Amino acid sequence: MKQLKAAVLGASGYTGGELLRILARHPYVELGPVFAQSSAGVLVSDLHPWAEEDMVFEATNGSEIDAEICFLALPHGEAMSIAPALLEQGKIVIDLSGDHRLKDGALYQQYYKKAPAETVVVNEAIYGLPEWNKEAIQSARFVSNPGCYATSAILALAAPLAEGLIDPKSIVINSMSGVSGAGRKSSVEYSFVEVNENVKAYRIGDHQHIPEIESVLSGIASQEVKVTFTPHLIPITRGIYTTINAQLANGATHDAFAAAFDKYYANAPFVRVSATRIPEIRRVTGTNFIDIYFQVLPDRDQVTIISTEDNLVKGAAGQAVQNMNLLCGFPETEGLL
Amino acid sequence: MKQLKAAVLGASGYTGGELLRILARHPYVELGPVFAQSSAGVLVSDLHPWAEEDMVFEATNGSEIDAEICFLALPHGEAMSIAPALLEQGKIVIDLSGDHRLKDGALYQQYYKKAPAETVVVNEAIYGLPEWNKEAIQSARFVSNPGCYATSAILALAAPLAEGLIDPKSIVINSMSGVSGAGRKSSVEYSFVEVNENVKAYRIGDHQHIPEIESVLSGIASQEVKVTFTPHLIPITRGIYTTINAQLANGATHDAFAAAFDKYYANAPFVRVSATRIPEIRRVTGTNFIDIYFQVLPDRDQVTIISTEDNLVKGAAGQAVQNMNLLCGFPETEGLL
Amino acid sequence: MKQLKAAVLGASGYTGGELLRILARHPYVELGPVFAQSSAGVLVSDLHPWAEEDMVFEATNGSEIDAEICFLALPHGEAMSIAPALLEQGKIVIDLSGDHRLKDGALYQQYYKKAPAETVVVNEAIYGLPEWNKEAIQSARFVSNPGCYATSAILALAAPLAEGLIDPKSIVINSMSGVSGAGRKSSVEYSFVEVNENVKAYRIGDHQHIPEIESVLSGIASQEVKVTFTPHLIPITRGIYTTINAQLANGATHDAFAAAFDKYYANAPFVRVSATRIPEIRRVTGTNFIDIYFQVLPDRDQVTIISTEDNLVKGAAGQAVQNMNLLCGFPETEGLL
Amino acid sequence: MKQLKAAVLGASGYTGGELLRILARHPYVELGPVFAQSSAGVLVSDLHPWAEEDMVFEATNGSEIDAEICFLALPHGEAMSIAPALLEQGKIVIDLSGDHRLKDGALYQQYYKKAPAETVVVNEAIYGLPEWNKEAIQSARFVSNPGCYATSAILALAAPLAEGLIDPKSIVINSMSGVSGAGRKSSVEYSFVEVNENVKAYRIGDHQHIPEIESVLSGIASQEVKVTFTPHLIPITRGIYTTINAQLANGATHDAFAAAFDKYYANAPFVRVSATRIPEIRRVTGTNFIDIYFQVLPDRDQVTIISTEDNLVKGAAGQAVQNMNLLCGFPETEGLL
Repeated sequence: MKQLKAAVLGASGYTGGELLRILARHPYVELGPVFAQSSAGVLVSDLHPWAEEDMVFEATNGSEIDAEICFLALPHGEAMSIAPALLEQGKIVIDLSGDHRLKDGALYQQYYKKAPAETVVVNEAIYGLPEWNKEAIQSARFVSNPGCYATSAILALAAPLAEGLIDPKSIVINSMSGVSGAGRKSSVEYSFVEVNENVKAYRIGDHQHIPEIESVLSGIASQEVKVTFTPHLIPITRGIYTTINAQLANGATHDAFAAAFDKYYANAPFVRVSATRIPEIRRVTGTNFIDIYFQVLPDRDQVTIISTEDNLVKGAAGQAVQNMNLLCGFPETEGLL
Repeated sequence: MKQLKAAVLGASGYTGGELLRILARHPYVELGPVFAQSSAGVLVSDLHPWAEEDMVFEATNGSEIDAEICFLALPHGEAMSIAPALLEQGKIVIDLSGDHRLKDGALYQQYYKKAPAETVVVNEAIYGLPEWNKEAIQSARFVSNPGCYATSAILALAAPLAEGLIDPKSIVINSMSGVSGAGRKSSVEYSFVEVNENVKAYRIGDHQHIPEIESVLSGIASQEVKVTFTPHLIPITRGIYTTINAQLANGATHDAFAAAFDKYYANAPFVRVSATRIPEIRRVTGTNFIDIYFQVLPDRDQVTIISTEDNLVKGAAGQAVQNMNLLCGFPETEGLL
Repeated sequence: MKQLKAAVLGASGYTGGELLRILARHPYVELGPVFAQSSAGVLVSDLHPWAEEDMVFEATNGSEIDAEICFLALPHGEAMSIAPALLEQGKIVIDLSGDHRLKDGALYQQYYKKAPAETVVVNEAIYGLPEWNKEAIQSARFVSNPGCYATSAILALAAPLAEGLIDPKSIVINSMSGVSGAGRKSSVEYSFVEVNENVKAYRIGDHQHIPEIESVLSGIASQEVKVTFTPHLIPITRGIYTTINAQLANGATHDAFAAAFDKYYANAPFVRVSATRIPEIRRVTGTNFIDIYFQVLPDRDQVTIISTEDNLVKGAAGQAVQNMNLLCGFPETEGLL
Repeated sequence: MKQLKAAVLGASGYTGGELLRILARHPYVELGPVFAQSSAGVLVSDLHPWAEEDMVFEATNGSEIDAEICFLALPHGEAMSIAPALLEQGKIVIDLSGDHRLKDGALYQQYYKKAPAETVVVNEAIYGLPEWNKEAIQSARFVSNPGCYATSAILALAAPLAEGLIDPKSIVINSMSGVSGAGRKSSVEYSFVEVNENVKAYRIGDHQHIPEIESVLSGIASQEVKVTFTPHLIPITRGIYTTINAQLANGATHDAFAAAFDKYYANAPFVRVSATRIPEIRRVTGTNFIDIYFQVLPDRDQVTIISTEDNLVKGAAGQAVQNMNLLCGFPETEGLL
C-alpha cells in the first residue's frame, strides 16, 4: 500500500521531528533514511520519543539517498547547497528552509544576510501555500514551503486583499511565537530561565518573513502591499498567534469579509474561519489547522484579523506533508487529521 | 518617623497584596487596617506570604477607618460606592479601580456596563499619571489611579503625540498581559490548564481602557486621538508588554522621537527610554519602572514603540504609592526602589 | 465495521475530553451520546477542540442511553449512584471514578469521606489494571479503572514485590502531578497565578490512592504491603512522575530486578522498562505508555524505581479504553498507538 | 556608613547576579569590582537588570582586587584555583562552589570527578551553615557556603537527628529544583522547549550533595547517617522543594519533633517551622527563608518532613551574605529582609 519512500534531511530539529511523527503514520509513505549531520549515529528516539526504537540518524552528502521524496528541514544556507543535486537525481524536493522562497536574490541577501541560491533553482521552486497555489503545487517536483509567520499572516490577509477590502499600505502585523520556532539550539537566549515569565520582541522591521509576506500578498492583491511586522517570543513551546490590524477600504463591511473568506476557504480543509469565536492556540496545537477570526471595528474604520496555527505543523511539517499530498495525488488531508 | 497611617480596602487580591508589600517597607507610612469583605477573619499571610504573621483581614462599611489615607483596590462598581463617604470623612483616597477615570459617564456606562459614579465625585478625582499630571496630583486629595494597559500605552505615546510626531488616527496598540491582571478569581478561564501553552485575545475593540487611553491622549495631543487596542492573555504571572505601531507625521525622524522622550522623561525616575535595547518583561518585574523603546521604520513611514511594565506595580500598586508620595510631599521614589 | 456504540458520562472534564479524543478515532467504536449535566446544551467543541463541530452535551438520568458501553468519568460519589441502573440495563460499564476500587467500604469511607457504594456492586467490579488482571477483565462487564497515582505506583512496584525483591514495609513513594489531575475546576487553588512557579505537597499520608495501592500490592505480594505516599502539585498540565525508594530484600541484585520486570512486562504493550534511560514526562505525554526505570543502589541497600505516565491517558482514559479493548475482544492496543 | 568593600568573582551567573542584587542594598557593604572572565567588558545590566547602568564585568587573575571580602560564585574547580591566593592576600573569602565543602578529598574526587583542593586549604574552610555553625563562622575568615540541596536537606533533618527521633539509616530525600540551579548555560538540555511540561530525575545515587549531606548530618547525629537522595528538574525558574521520609526512632512523637525544631530554631531568623501549613515554593521565592513542615504518620511509624527555599537565596547568595554578616559582626539579617 505504501507508494513512496521519503527521506528527511535535518531530522534532529523540532521541525524534523514533527515530520517524522507525521510521516510515520502516513498510509502512503514509507519513512526512509533520516539524516542529521551533527547527530549521525545517535538513536532517533533519543531526541524524538515517538520514533521507532531502532532508527538511527545518518549523515549524507546528498548522493545515493534511498527515497523518491526528500524533505529538507535544514537551516537556511544549507538547503540551497544540497537541493540542486537532489533535483538533478530526479528526487521530489520539499524545502522547509527559507532558501528558495524569495525570487529576488537581493531581498534574500538583505534579510537572510547570506548569498542567495542560484536564480535558476529558485525559479523552479513552487511556493507551497496550498490554499492559494494548489494547481502549481500539484504539478511541481520542487516545493518551497512557506515560513511559519508568513503562513499565519498570508492566510489571514490574502482573502480580504484579493477582494480589495483593506488598504494595502495600512497593515500592522503582530505575532507571538512559541520557542520551538527558534529550533533546537544550545543558547542561553532560549533557556528556560531566560524565556519563562518573559516576553521579548525581536528583529523589528527586519525579519526575513517580511519580504515573503509582502511579495506573496502583492501578487494576490495585484498591487504593492507593505506590512509592518513585529514578532515576539513568548513562554510557550508551540504555536503562533498573529493579530493583524488594517484600515478598511471601499467601505468594506462585516459581510464583505465573511464573503471573502468563504469564497477562498470554503473548501480549504485546514482553514477554519469564524467571526464569533476568538482563536486560542490550544485549539490548533498538534494539528494542521489554522484558525482565522475577523472583527470589523466600524467606528474606527478598521478590521482586526487574528490567526493561530501550530508553528511546527501548519507552519512547517504539516504544510510540507500537505504539499506532498497534493504533489503526489494523495488526498490533501491524508495523514494530517 | 512614620507620618501617615494607610488602610487598604480590597486587600485580598493581587493588587491589594502588592500594596501591602510596598507599604510595609515604606519609611513614612504605617500600615493600618487591611480590609477584604469576603476574607474577613482570614490571616493576611495565608494569601500574601510577605505579610506579618498576625495581620488579619477585616470587614468595613467605610466608617471609622483608622487611617488618613485609603487605597481602594476594589472591583469596579464597589469603589464608587464607598469613595464619597471616605472623602466626606476627610480621608485621602487613592482609587485603583476604573470607577473615577472617565469624566464622561456615558463612556463609563458603555465600556464598564455599569451605571457611572456621581459626576461631582468623578470631577474631583485627579488622574494619577505622575509623569503627565504631577502638579495636580501634588495638590490632590482624591486620585484615580490609571489602568494597567492605559499606563503602558499612554506613557509610550504621549511624548510623540505632544510633539506631533505621529498621526493620531493611525495608532495600533497590541498588549500582552500576565494572568494576575485578571485578579484572584475562581474561574476555569484562568486555571493553569486553560492558560498554560495558550494565548487568547479578548475584548477586541471593546476594552474599558480604550476610552481612558483616547481621552488622556487627546488631551495631551490637543486633538482627537483614536486607537485600535487588542489585549491578549498569555501564560505569565506578571507583566504587560505593549507593542504600538503608528504612521509618522510631518517627516518625523529618529532624532525627533529621541528628543521628545528626553523632553518629557529626562527627570521621570521610573521611565527608562532606549532606542537600542528591546524591552523584556523580566527587566521590570517587581519594579515600578516602565521601559520604553522606539524604532523608526523610515521605508514604511512607521514607528514601532514598545513599553513594558509590571502590571501590579507601575500598572497598579506602585503607581498608587508614587501618587501618594507626590500628594503627601514625600520623595517621588520613596519605598519604590 | 464499527461494532459497538459507546457513551461517555461526565464528558465535560479533562478525562472525559480525553475519552472523546481516543474513542473518536477507535476503529471498532462509534461514539454515541455524550453527557455532562452542568454543560447540557453546550457545544462539545467549546470545551474540547478536537470534537466534531455539531456534537452537544446532553443530560441524563441514566435511563435509555443509546449505547452498549458506558464510560463513567464522573466525580467520586456520582458514579456509584448511576452504575447499578446501567448494569441492570445490561450495559457494559467502565467506571473511571474511585467509587468501586476499594472492596473495603470502611476504607472508602475513611479516605473518600463519603458513604461507600453497595457491597454487592463493588464486589462485581473488576479492577482494571490490564498488566495484572487481564483474564478477569476479558470476561468482565463492569470494570473499575485504577487511579492515576495508583497506576504509576502499582506498575512500578508489582513485579519486584511479586518476586520478593524489596521489603514490603519500606516503600516510600513521591509523586508529582500536572494540574489536569485535579479536574476542570473553578478554583483559585488551581489558577495559573497560584500554580505557576510553585510546588505544593498535599494530602500527606491521607490520599485516597494509598489504600488502593496497598490493597492491590498486598494481593500481588501475598503479604501486607505498607507505603508512604506524598503527592505534589507542580506547574505542568499533564503527566505524573513517581519516584519510589525501597529497601532491597534477600540480597536482590540489578539482574533480579531486570528479570522480574521482564517476566511480567515482556508482553505488556504499554509498559516500557529501562535500566539506562531515566524517564521524562514528555516521552509519554499524549500516549498510553508508562515508562519505568530502576536503579539498584547497592552501597545503600536500596532501589530507586521511577515511573512516568500521562495522567489523562494511562492514568485514566487510555487505560479505560485498554480495558474496553480486552473486555470486548479487540486487540489490546486498538486506538491507542 | 559602609564598612566593607566586597568583590564578586563569577558574577555573570544566576547566583552571582543574586549576590549583586543583595549586596547593592546592604547598608554596610560597598559593592566593589565585579568579575566574570567570559563576559569581561560587558555591561552588568545586560545580564542582571537590577545592576547600576554603568557597571561593567572585569577579568581578574586574583591579584590586586580592591575589596576586603571576596565572594566566589565560580564553577567547581575554578574556586579552588583562586582561593589560596586571595587568602594569602588577607582577603575574607566566601566560596559558594563545592570546592571546599568536603574534608575528605577522596569523596570530592568521587562525586565531583575532579582532583580535590589542597587539604590545608580545605581544612581552613568553615562550613557556612549559620543555624548549626554560628560560632565558628563568627570567627572565620574563609567560609565554604553549603550546597542548595544540602541546605534544604540538612536544615530539615538536623534537629530530629540531633535529638535521636529518626533512624539514621532510613532517610529518603526527594528534591525538585528550578532550572536556575543548573546555572546560566548554553545547553539544549535546559532550553525552554526541553524543560517546559517535563520532569526528569538526574544523578540518582550519585549527586555531589550526597556526601555533603551525609558528613554534616553524621557530625550532628554523632553517628553514621546514610541518605538516599534523588534530585529532579522541574519547569520553574527558582526554588527547591525537598520531601523527606524516615522511620521514627525510639517511639518519637509529634511533640518530640515540635520540641526538637523549637530547640534549635527558635532563634534562627530565617527558619520557619510549621506543623500545620504545608510549604509552597512561592512563600520563599526571593527571600532567605527556609520553610520546614513535619508530619508524623504514626500508623506507618514514619515522619514526612518538607522544606522549601529559594535555591539562589538561602540555597546560595542569601546564605553567603548571612555568613558575611556573622563573620563581620553585622546583624545576622542585615540586607536580607
